[in-house]
Amino acid sequence: MQEKQEDDVSRRSFLSNTGKILAGVAVASSVFASQEKNVSAYGYETGFKYVKLDPEEVGRITYENYFKRWCASSVMAGFVEPLRAKAGGLWKDFPIDAMRWAHGGMAGWGALCGTLVGAGTVIGLVTNETDVSEGMANDLAFYYSNTELPSYQPKKIIKTKLEQMTLATTPVCHISVGRWMRASGKAFLSDERAERCARLAANIAMETTHMLNNWKDGKFKAKHALLFNVAANGITSQNNCADCHGHSVPPAETYTTLKE
Amino acid sequence: MQEKQEDDVSRRSFLSNTGKILAGVAVASSVFASQEKNVSAYGYETGFKYVKLDPEEVGRITYENYFKRWCASSVMAGFVEPLRAKAGGLWKDFPIDAMRWAHGGMAGWGALCGTLVGAGTVIGLVTNETDVSEGMANDLAFYYSNTELPSYQPKKIIKTKLEQMTLATTPVCHISVGRWMRASGKAFLSDERAERCARLAANIAMETTHMLNNWKDGKFKAKHALLFNVAANGITSQNNCADCHGHSVPPAETYTTLKE
Repeated sequence: MQEKQEDDVSRRSFLSNTGKILAGVAVASSVFASQEKNVSAYGYETGFKYVKLDPEEVGRITYENYFKRWCASSVMAGFVEPLRAKAGGLWKDFPIDAMRWAHGGMAGWGALCGTLVGAGTVIGLVTNETDVSEGMANDLAFYYSNTELPSYQPKKIIKTKLEQMTLATTPVCHISVGRWMRASGKAFLSDERAERCARLAANIAMETTHMLNNWKDGKFKAKHALLFNVAANGITSQNNCADCHGHSVPPAETYTTLKE
Repeated sequence: MQEKQEDDVSRRSFLSNTGKILAGVAVASSVFASQEKNVSAYGYETGFKYVKLDPEEVGRITYENYFKRWCASSVMAGFVEPLRAKAGGLWKDFPIDAMRWAHGGMAGWGALCGTLVGAGTVIGLVTNETDVSEGMANDLAFYYSNTELPSYQPKKIIKTKLEQMTLATTPVCHISVGRWMRASGKAFLSDERAERCARLAANIAMETTHMLNNWKDGKFKAKHALLFNVAANGITSQNNCADCHGHSVPPAETYTTLKE
């Protein structure tokens, strides 16, 4: 298989110059991203076919699988099981548990929420343009961070009833789970926390299904600009700087002009 | 394809009880993990074959690919390109750029370093037992966090010479990159930072190759206990609590006994 790639010779020089221009300036990240798209995006070939799926079915399978497979692989199961039946082909040989290592933010390290690794993998396998797959991943990180979750209500509850929802403010497992634990008063090793992550996984799988269904219909358009984070903060980052930096958030120009 | 799965009925009750017992106690996480293994691990089938690879070749391909594909996909390229030639089969249809969305800690969000998503994906695709894939991912997170990197020296430098190495203390992109930027005085949008991440990607790909080659020889044994983080801190986490919490690190019992 050959990937169709555009020359990216100008990318770094563009970014480097842009970084200098942007130093210390609050920028419209959409402008940054629209220019960025032209120099770094490229198409690629994939044989993993997508057919439109029922978000409710994907959510249910994901939820049910969580209790044996945890976050990343449960989202994989939510897509791979129906895609094996409805799209076939390469999905028949894709091992659902290939992404299980990502549970708990990578084997429990609390970094990127495993549901997003599962969802991102499905997105990357079926879409065939980097700006589309990254646009969906970016929108999904916004959804995860800025939506009160979990809102998914299973028709058949597996562990326990649950009412507490929280705003994660970040796609990072440790903070997302920690905020929910603080709000609910429930420990990590409780049935409630497991139920929470199972429902959250269903939410993420369903939101991903909506995006992929739109894409299949030719209607997907990313809601948020790519690399807004680098443009705004001069480093890979989120919108929750004060969570860790408190009152000492390094200014963006620190990162764009350091000894250059 | 059917996954061989053991019943995990007792897993949550085991974890729940263990959590109560461990509350406030400094525990030998190896004990925790050795028990954990028996109740949550299961085998799974995969058709992605692994043949032993030359770490230098994997590192070189990864390094060279970084400048067009960024972190996650460059590690994928380091493995998929030689495996297509030497193992064939399903690798021929695996799109290298399926994981590109993970660059910069998920489309620039700075969460889990993309090199680890790429490496984890390869590990998960070829190993066929969850405790092996998670054991490798866990060891790799330790290697990433506790090793001065990048130490990789390309035979043919692509962007610029580079001397600065740093200890990330975490698998999180933002902190890993930020520490290096602070130490080097170089901005995110500099050639030096790109060169740093390219060499780091090569290091991670090479370490992964060593582990997979050992596994292929039947000699892989995880160095670190699984879920040490949950056992030690009562939540998915790392060993860098003070990085964000400063002097106010919540005690582990907060997380294991909250209103239970």
